[in-house]
Amino acid sequence: MEKFFCPESVVVFGVSNRPGNLGTGVIHNLQHFGFSGRYYAVGREEGEVLGVPIHVSLDEIEDRIDLAVILTPTGTMPEVFRQCARRGISRLIIEAGGFREYKDEFRAIEDELLAICREHGMRFIGPNCIGTMNFARRMCLHFSPQKILPRLGGAGLISQSGGITVWFSHLLSQEGVGINKAASVGNKLDVNETDLLEYFLRDPEVEIPILYLEGFSQGRRLFDLARSSDKPILVWKSNAYPQSARIAHSHTAALLADDRVADAALLQAGIYRGRDARHFTVAAKALALKPMKGNRLMIIARSGGHAVMCVDRAARHGFELLTPPASFLEAIARIAPETRIIRQNPLDIGDVFDSSCYDWMVEAALGIPGMDGLAFVQLLTPLEDNRHSEAMMRRVVQLAAAAEVPVAIGYMIQGGDTAALKQSVDYPVFDNPDDTLDALAIARDYWRMKARARRPRHDEAPERDRAGAAALLAQARAPLLPGDLALKLLESYGIATPAWVRGSTVEEAGRLAAEIGFPVALKAIAAELSHKTEAGAVALDLKDAAAVREAGRGMVERIRQNLPPAKIAGFLVQKMGGPGIELIVGGKRDPNFGPVVILGLGGIFVEVLNQVVIRLLPVDREEAREMIAELPGGALLRGGRGQAPADLEALADLILRAGQLLVDHPTIQELDLNPVRASASGAEALDARVIVEPDQTQANARRQP
Amino acid sequence: MEKFFCPESVVVFGVSNRPGNLGTGVIHNLQHFGFSGRYYAVGREEGEVLGVPIHVSLDEIEDRIDLAVILTPTGTMPEVFRQCARRGISRLIIEAGGFREYKDEFRAIEDELLAICREHGMRFIGPNCIGTMNFARRMCLHFSPQKILPRLGGAGLISQSGGITVWFSHLLSQEGVGINKAASVGNKLDVNETDLLEYFLRDPEVEIPILYLEGFSQGRRLFDLARSSDKPILVWKSNAYPQSARIAHSHTAALLADDRVADAALLQAGIYRGRDARHFTVAAKALALKPMKGNRLMIIARSGGHAVMCVDRAARHGFELLTPPASFLEAIARIAPETRIIRQNPLDIGDVFDSSCYDWMVEAALGIPGMDGLAFVQLLTPLEDNRHSEAMMRRVVQLAAAAEVPVAIGYMIQGGDTAALKQSVDYPVFDNPDDTLDALAIARDYWRMKARARRPRHDEAPERDRAGAAALLAQARAPLLPGDLALKLLESYGIATPAWVRGSTVEEAGRLAAEIGFPVALKAIAAELSHKTEAGAVALDLKDAAAVREAGRGMVERIRQNLPPAKIAGFLVQKMGGPGIELIVGGKRDPNFGPVVILGLGGIFVEVLNQVVIRLLPVDREEAREMIAELPGGALLRGGRGQAPADLEALADLILRAGQLLVDHPTIQELDLNPVRASASGAEALDARVIVEPDQTQANARRQP
Repeated sequence: MEKFFCPESVVVFGVSNRPGNLGTGVIHNLQHFGFSGRYYAVGREEGEVLGVPIHVSLDEIEDRIDLAVILTPTGTMPEVFRQCARRGISRLIIEAGGFREYKDEFRAIEDELLAICREHGMRFIGPNCIGTMNFARRMCLHFSPQKILPRLGGAGLISQSGGITVWFSHLLSQEGVGINKAASVGNKLDVNETDLLEYFLRDPEVEIPILYLEGFSQGRRLFDLARSSDKPILVWKSNAYPQSARIAHSHTAALLADDRVADAALLQAGIYRGRDARHFTVAAKALALKPMKGNRLMIIARSGGHAVMCVDRAARHGFELLTPPASFLEAIARIAPETRIIRQNPLDIGDVFDSSCYDWMVEAALGIPGMDGLAFVQLLTPLEDNRHSEAMMRRVVQLAAAAEVPVAIGYMIQGGDTAALKQSVDYPVFDNPDDTLDALAIARDYWRMKARARRPRHDEAPERDRAGAAALLAQARAPLLPGDLALKLLESYGIATPAWVRGSTVEEAGRLAAEIGFPVALKAIAAELSHKTEAGAVALDLKDAAAVREAGRGMVERIRQNLPPAKIAGFLVQKMGGPGIELIVGGKRDPNFGPVVILGLGGIFVEVLNQVVIRLLPVDREEAREMIAELPGGALLRGGRGQAPADLEALADLILRAGQLLVDHPTIQELDLNPVRASASGAEALDARVIVEPDQTQANARRQP
Repeated sequence: MEKFFCPESVVVFGVSNRPGNLGTGVIHNLQHFGFSGRYYAVGREEGEVLGVPIHVSLDEIEDRIDLAVILTPTGTMPEVFRQCARRGISRLIIEAGGFREYKDEFRAIEDELLAICREHGMRFIGPNCIGTMNFARRMCLHFSPQKILPRLGGAGLISQSGGITVWFSHLLSQEGVGINKAASVGNKLDVNETDLLEYFLRDPEVEIPILYLEGFSQGRRLFDLARSSDKPILVWKSNAYPQSARIAHSHTAALLADDRVADAALLQAGIYRGRDARHFTVAAKALALKPMKGNRLMIIARSGGHAVMCVDRAARHGFELLTPPASFLEAIARIAPETRIIRQNPLDIGDVFDSSCYDWMVEAALGIPGMDGLAFVQLLTPLEDNRHSEAMMRRVVQLAAAAEVPVAIGYMIQGGDTAALKQSVDYPVFDNPDDTLDALAIARDYWRMKARARRPRHDEAPERDRAGAAALLAQARAPLLPGDLALKLLESYGIATPAWVRGSTVEEAGRLAAEIGFPVALKAIAAELSHKTEAGAVALDLKDAAAVREAGRGMVERIRQNLPPAKIAGFLVQKMGGPGIELIVGGKRDPNFGPVVILGLGGIFVEVLNQVVIRLLPVDREEAREMIAELPGGALLRGGRGQAPADLEALADLILRAGQLLVDHPTIQELDLNPVRASASGAEALDARVIVEPDQTQANARRQP
């Protein structure tokens, strides 16, 4: 990827003298900002733009070229690629749009470009993008002439939208974060965000990779990369709603995947997800602060009202307001002896009108032993002109930058221009008390999440009968595995189920029920029965053999009437269990992230809560425990109301085993243990729905007719 | 209140030549901004500040004075008040602090001031505030010299903090809302926020009252005032967490009340509550837009990425993206014929680089029939200099101001100064796609909420035995009403309960149980039993008389061991009911807002959801229905899973009756019908906890020993 960002020489295809020519825009930007390398223009007609000659062929240029930027019509691109191949140019950027998002015919051209690249070891970014930027080298390959280069800093931006690339670059710049490199990936036909992230994670100049995405190209690879790195990563994933997907499709051909899985994957990988523009901006600034290693907070605020706002927000984030030691209070008394300042935390400096004291107060606060973070919220009165404020700000920023704890500065100016003041310091400054406190919460919580993501995994697979399970799956003749096979599958992986037997007829079911003991549940077995309860194919709490037979006959009748094609292959008789909490443990294969496991409260809670915990597989025992700890409504598992606490270790074990089934057997598309009953005596699956890949079931059918 | 904001003449007490004198600050502000009235200074020593003579006595001033601003030491204030009384000055502002928040002794002075006011018909604002502002009259009574007067506009600000008053005034100004009047209420010793709100609601110059509060002084009056007015009202109520209350107490002596009740009261009164600084700012701007009367939205965005962000946010708010008619698409084709603009909604104008087209597009969009709101999100490239952008903005703002639907403008500028552009137009401009769409959602939802709050109430009280209930309450000897009396109380108000009897002994209970039919529940009756289940004083599902006797004996034993002072007054035998959904219906008296009624899911859901619906009383039938419709997890009431839908009308009726009990009988402090069982056959209370005011129970005890 190096040459995409650090080329010694660049050639731009598609340059002309016509007004509005986009190639000229690239030349303008290289020239205007003083790109540190060499650059050339190629066009259909000889000429000159901005003093740079336009060549009609690449052959006219003798220099060795590292990178080509292409702004020619779609139909000409294969030829441009071939020219580049001949000259050994292995990195290209297609900024022009006009591919499959406009016409389906252009798909063939896409394929041709990819084939050329494969043959010659070439890689390209785009199409439909604004290229790459390396601000340290003063390189901007955008086709639209730019006026201002953003502030240099630690962010590395990867974006699926050109407009967002430009906006975020300047936003990060204005907000004191600064940016080192940026790339707009467009349609991601070859190089995608994950390739670029891999490069940014290795690049010592990029401190915080920041991604704007509308869809994932290689979600699982992105996940693994993020977990392997110590750098903080921030993502804005839009397209979270089906309605947006339609636009995204026409925009950069992104497809909507399950956004909840994306959420879980980012969290598990230690990636911070921005939720909206404000939150995203605050997070980018917060990640540029020092990590907050504890919870003891000190607040200095300009007025009582601001202090109350800060404390409200601090309480919401669960911060502990430390009690300042006497030495600090004495120091404050020395700095501002005349005022009736209330010497507590928050320190309300509303009565101190001499702003030259403020930096001393910050310095005194930074000396408090055991303080984990400091919020300094300032509203400057217009008496102090901006030059004065700026001097105070500079001093506070110096103190903040040198401090070992995070210092979040909230800065409001009445009737003045905060933007100019922000611009004048190389440090993030926040706009109000809420953002200031939110930033400290992120500086605390992000690094905990990151540490969790970076924790070494203990992938001790549970003991199981892998071959036995494979043999059971090979018996599937339809996507839905019959109920008795599904239960056997669980048992082969050591997942507890209530005692059960299979009866071929109603009479046999009744007889066998007596052997396992009443009360029992009766369930009809048929490949067509994907929703047994709705089809009337389940009867619970049957007290004797007669009841079993009667229930069985009723089922046969109902299924014959409601679902005539269903062939009842037999009956499953299952011992009814004791009390417990009903849960769902399940899994599926996500198109972006691969196999995932979910845990949720079951039964009636599914409707009321509609919330589950999701993890990408594999999970280790520690993660299974975390899932239980995070379960919405999980307090129910901890007992009370006359129930003993559930055996959480048994539940964690069940989650591990269900996950292992999905990991070991890619043919399983969906797994749904519902309900799982957790109680003091363990965790067991009462029913299972297993969906096998259709191709696999057809192959099974052919092999063993 | 008029003279607090529109005085013809003002006198400032506490003016001197000493540096940092606060009275001089007031004189400065009156002079600097060119106050349209007359003003005078009074101090201990004769002299002159800023060309204004300092009088040593009020008697030296011959003019009729409308308003006094007081900045003298606490001890001198009674004398100042008396001087003012003699001169017929009936409106005063104490800006100085130094009252009970510093020393308890000052309480006596507070009382003295209030007595003087009562005697002479005077009113005062403060202490501990920065006074009032009337920007149209160029009046600013702040003691801190100000440089810039905020932009004139429709907001009327009432704030419990001086710092916040200043900050918000300038924030509203910068954000294009503008401000007409402001008042900082400080400790609210006499005039409070509700007095000021009442004035602002009548004042034709104030269009949007905006309040920053740390506590309510007369919550119920504020509630009633808000419901009586057509003006939109915005509140930031901080102090939502116990930790903040400590600070607020030292700040302006506010006390924390139950924040959930405040939330419900504001919603019910049609007051918008800001949640944080960004949200509050967006809301203030959104309320200045036209109301959005339908849900059909049109979006014009500068890039595909911005369009996706807009649609994401629109989907989150449930907006419908209308399909633009052919006439609109043709108009766009005429405006920008050369580009590959995708003619849909959102209209992505990323390929249109000529910004002079943008206002035409907005005009074309405003012509779409049936459109309810328009979002116009712009990222200006630096090619277009700010003057050009400003001209385009002005034109778009003109169109927006003249439109019949709300037009939310999101405006981002790369590397430039958005603040200056915002300052140049008298219209709110938003900073990013999220804020732009959030504003439209507020412009839609706020007015629905307002209409609901303004709906005429039908306070048809249900038929009930009010005297009978009063007689039952008069029997209370302890705060907790015995179980049998509580059930009778419910019955007197027509609230259904399962059949029950009272047995004096275990044996009698067993015998009577047979009469009402098994199974039954048995509950011990004792005034000390505030938590029957925990005390082991409840047995459920007893199948015969023997079981009742056995359970009763067990209870006697348990209570004797665990709660020796409890005197068992008898047993309540209650018929067990059928299946249904368990709910809680309750009520209490809020110190700010008076009687409230709550509805929540009961049983195990209390722990899992921890959410209830709250309404201030009285409620009418329509509001009781709304409570049911808003109930978190209320989907359970609508049936499914083999259960018929619950009788919602019966439940609404029960809520009405429970509410009426609280309204009619102020002696009831808490009412807790838990559980209430709602099913297809009705709604009934299975148990009731009624807490009677202790003074009342003591009076009862004295009356009938």
